[in-house]
Amino acid sequence: MPYVNIKITNENVTPEKKAQLIAGATQLLVDVLGKNPATTVVVIDEVDTDNWGIAGETVTERRKAGK
Amino acid sequence: MPYVNIKITNENVTPEKKAQLIAGATQLLVDVLGKNPATTVVVIDEVDTDNWGIAGETVTERRKAGK
Amino acid sequence: MPYVNIKITNENVTPEKKAQLIAGATQLLVDVLGKNPATTVVVIDEVDTDNWGIAGETVTERRKAGK
Amino acid sequence: MPYVNIKITNENVTPEKKAQLIAGATQLLVDVLGKNPATTVVVIDEVDTDNWGIAGETVTERRKAGK
Amino acid sequence: MPYVNIKITNENVTPEKKAQLIAGATQLLVDVLGKNPATTVVVIDEVDTDNWGIAGETVTERRKAGK
Amino acid sequence: MPYVNIKITNENVTPEKKAQLIAGATQLLVDVLGKNPATTVVVIDEVDTDNWGIAGETVTERRKAGK
Repeated sequence: MPYVNIKITNENVTPEKKAQLIAGATQLLVDVLGKNPATTVVVIDEVDTDNWGIAGETVTERRKAGK
Repeated sequence: MPYVNIKITNENVTPEKKAQLIAGATQLLVDVLGKNPATTVVVIDEVDTDNWGIAGETVTERRKAGK
Repeated sequence: MPYVNIKITNENVTPEKKAQLIAGATQLLVDVLGKNPATTVVVIDEVDTDNWGIAGETVTERRKAGK
Repeated sequence: MPYVNIKITNENVTPEKKAQLIAGATQLLVDVLGKNPATTVVVIDEVDTDNWGIAGETVTERRKAGK
Repeated sequence: MPYVNIKITNENVTPEKKAQLIAGATQLLVDVLGKNPATTVVVIDEVDTDNWGIAGETVTERRKAGK
Repeated sequence: MPYVNIKITNENVTPEKKAQLIAGATQLLVDVLGKNPATTVVVIDEVDTDNWGIAGETVTERRKAGK
């Protein structure tokens, strides 16, 4: 019954990678807490680099600055 | 003052259906808890089927498999 | 498969009222979008009135001021 | 280490405005709580006006009605 | 820089189990997407069984019914 | 109409500090985007240090290690 939300920057993540994140997060809940995978939900949000900030600046700006 | 977030898969939900979800969720808070509709906020997130997982696999895969 | 999150202030909401919110939100998704209730998840967050703000002030302050 | 999520309607917010929101929210956590900006994350979600409801109706409908 | 939120029912999860969830979710992002663990944030929300619903009823009710 | 969610570790944040966060976040939306403060909502979540992870470990562990 767990619900997992993964937020990452939107930078060409393939459907295969997303499927791996979903399978891996579900298995983690099974392994650590014995949760039922049938009702484990995982939602991935891909966030534009203009809309993600860390250290007070956008990821877009950080990428330009080579950070 | 309540805040309701509804996450659904992105599968051609019409503006009319969204308006019904918003009206219905707002009314629910009025009916059950007597909340003020004027400050009740509802946000709908439509999530790509590649980005939604249940039972360890993406909804895209499940649809292909006829689940 | 929908996921609904309802945030309300923490003000003595009974288990019966919570059960009504969960039943009502699930039925809304069934009625409007034909979703499967078996995999519809509803999570209620109760937020302390010190931690909820509207119009730039906390709900605690607003209640004291009779708003 | 704080995490801030800002949800706004999707109405032509420029990258410069987004950068100001990120800088401002980060500074707020520094000023009020002495948090470390280096690990302060801000994520902005832009929500379609069809998907945002207040007072039981969508923002799209409200804009049409001149509200 | 990813942000992961794990919501589970509040049922005596030990600090050791929580540490395993945090380590595992962080490693998943490193393994699948090559993310930097230093800025990967994981937040676990423990939700009362009265506040979590699936299939239209609370987990509290489901546990009583032996589901 | 914006919605802001601020997640911080649960470490004796006073009601006064919370009121400052709410006032400051609301003002930020007014200043940068011209939003209406009357319908701007801010919700603060205080998260136990056992439940917050960064760099693959809990904040509880990091505090013990003097990080």
